[in-house]
Amino acid sequence: MTTPVNRQWRFLRHPDGLYQPSDFEWREEAVPEVADGEVLVRNLLLSLDPTNRAWGFKEDTYMPSLAPGQVMRGLTIGVVEASRHPGFREGDYVSGITGWQDYLVSGGGDIHGLDRDPDVPLTTYLGLLGHIGLTAHYGLLEIGRPEPGQTVVVSAAAGATGSLVGQIAGIKGCRTVGIAGGEEKCRRLTEEFGFDEAVDYKRESVVGRLAELCPDGIDIYYDNVGGELLEAALDNLAMHARIVIAGQIAMYNDQSLPGPRNLFNLISKRARMEAFVVLDFMDDAEGSAAAIRELTGWYREGRLRFRTHVIDGLENAVTAVNMLFDGSNQGKLMVRIADDPGEG
Amino acid sequence: MTTPVNRQWRFLRHPDGLYQPSDFEWREEAVPEVADGEVLVRNLLLSLDPTNRAWGFKEDTYMPSLAPGQVMRGLTIGVVEASRHPGFREGDYVSGITGWQDYLVSGGGDIHGLDRDPDVPLTTYLGLLGHIGLTAHYGLLEIGRPEPGQTVVVSAAAGATGSLVGQIAGIKGCRTVGIAGGEEKCRRLTEEFGFDEAVDYKRESVVGRLAELCPDGIDIYYDNVGGELLEAALDNLAMHARIVIAGQIAMYNDQSLPGPRNLFNLISKRARMEAFVVLDFMDDAEGSAAAIRELTGWYREGRLRFRTHVIDGLENAVTAVNMLFDGSNQGKLMVRIADDPGEG
Repeated sequence: MTTPVNRQWRFLRHPDGLYQPSDFEWREEAVPEVADGEVLVRNLLLSLDPTNRAWGFKEDTYMPSLAPGQVMRGLTIGVVEASRHPGFREGDYVSGITGWQDYLVSGGGDIHGLDRDPDVPLTTYLGLLGHIGLTAHYGLLEIGRPEPGQTVVVSAAAGATGSLVGQIAGIKGCRTVGIAGGEEKCRRLTEEFGFDEAVDYKRESVVGRLAELCPDGIDIYYDNVGGELLEAALDNLAMHARIVIAGQIAMYNDQSLPGPRNLFNLISKRARMEAFVVLDFMDDAEGSAAAIRELTGWYREGRLRFRTHVIDGLENAVTAVNMLFDGSNQGKLMVRIADDPGEG
Repeated sequence: MTTPVNRQWRFLRHPDGLYQPSDFEWREEAVPEVADGEVLVRNLLLSLDPTNRAWGFKEDTYMPSLAPGQVMRGLTIGVVEASRHPGFREGDYVSGITGWQDYLVSGGGDIHGLDRDPDVPLTTYLGLLGHIGLTAHYGLLEIGRPEPGQTVVVSAAAGATGSLVGQIAGIKGCRTVGIAGGEEKCRRLTEEFGFDEAVDYKRESVVGRLAELCPDGIDIYYDNVGGELLEAALDNLAMHARIVIAGQIAMYNDQSLPGPRNLFNLISKRARMEAFVVLDFMDDAEGSAAAIRELTGWYREGRLRFRTHVIDGLENAVTAVNMLFDGSNQGKLMVRIADDPGEG
């Protein structure tokens, strides 16, 4: 059964701290008509990612700043309900940055077909075999360039990307140290995700523990967080270290946070700090397909574990997104907007 | 005439702010004897560089932290006064990190011969045709990788390295913007060193002026300073920008200074921030010789201007070094320890 209306979250204003419900407006509109050359997509799953908050900065980031009144931006997986476009058929799975809404009409430019394996849960394509897997794979392997025996430290290591980075680094023969908050997450790092060591930033001095655990220094710091954890990593670099800047969660809700005081350590250790945006890599169809093939292989061999945390109902998206910042999500966070017809 | 004693500045303690005279001790010792396989060097010129202060941090940097009691570390040019080493003859010019002193005996490992052109002032080999030229050449061309038409912004642009970076960037067809303190230095940037634009950080909002002067963003930020200027540059990056970390003068006398708050901009602009130490490049004999040949060519063609600021007398080294931090030096700062016999 389809909803007769198109429910939407529209973005209203740029907050200073965490997103508040009042920063969004709930709207119900008519489902748009499909014209020639267009396709009607019903969204099934909505990905919630820390970067959603960065899109709400007043300044443009790697995408234009959200404009008041627009449908909240978000990566989704949907299914084609009607097509007058030669490239899509009814029932096709598609993905794209189509927004926090039930339906959209697309000319095809903002969506791409998903080559779905029916044995793989749909949620996997917003996680391990989607942008999260690509982020971990590209960031670690292409920006970080690990070599066997090197030490890889990951922040937000129990999170969706971080947990994969640690596992891929392990597959590549690296020693891995994960940083996470709380005893349970730290246990998960070593027991579930195979990190060699875990640092609990809520209970331990990160700079001190990294010094103990990385006596030869950190070869790669895969940074999702920034702030104090980045400063702690900078104090423990190995010669020619690489710092992969994948995210800076620490500052998403407080842009006045001081940066690391010790960038001089980049000089001492002849280090490189480099950032990337996974969307660029996803534009490289060949490169990203090869990465997905490699991730799929490891997944089928049982070498990659991945947790998904699904919140039911588009109406809950606005409150759910903040779980990414209080650490209460227990895996890749996403919202189920509607049931997957392929699993019905 | 040679001094009958070996005068030295010895390092006593790690200061918190600027070096103070009381952080050093003046010592006069006997000139050491030369044994078989050794060479006696009389120092003529001592280079003063901002990095001298970083060597006095309590923590190791790219070199071990200075130990109380050791002869203050410093790069010099000297002349061989006596040799019992097959690789050196009396009268040879040599350079090395031989310290703030008149004389030293070396086994040859810490010095290298200087292929001196008698028509070129000796001071040039501590500047344009020495580590300063190599720093500018390597940092800009190898780390920054400029392309014609790109915008290069340089901090401490009226300084020894910065002024060369701007000129080399100009030779490579880039648009150049220099940041310096004060009207006179800014005039020098455009009139003497050929920068296209100058920003006076003492009078202007750097972030605002960079936005005006670099409407398409900064492709390369060659950073000698760190701190607020780095933050201003990070707010004005072009896509795929490169930030060359050559120095972080802002924090050398205040290590508690907050770092840039806006490292997220690295993500937005898919940027790379990379540091280097010129000593590594000097270890690459072939690479650095090629760079010196190129610099020599440009110098002979009159395409590179360079200022030298010479302070007379080893006894003045301790006070002179702080000119690097109050901006009162008017070119590459160095101390003349003794007259060059080749110019006598």
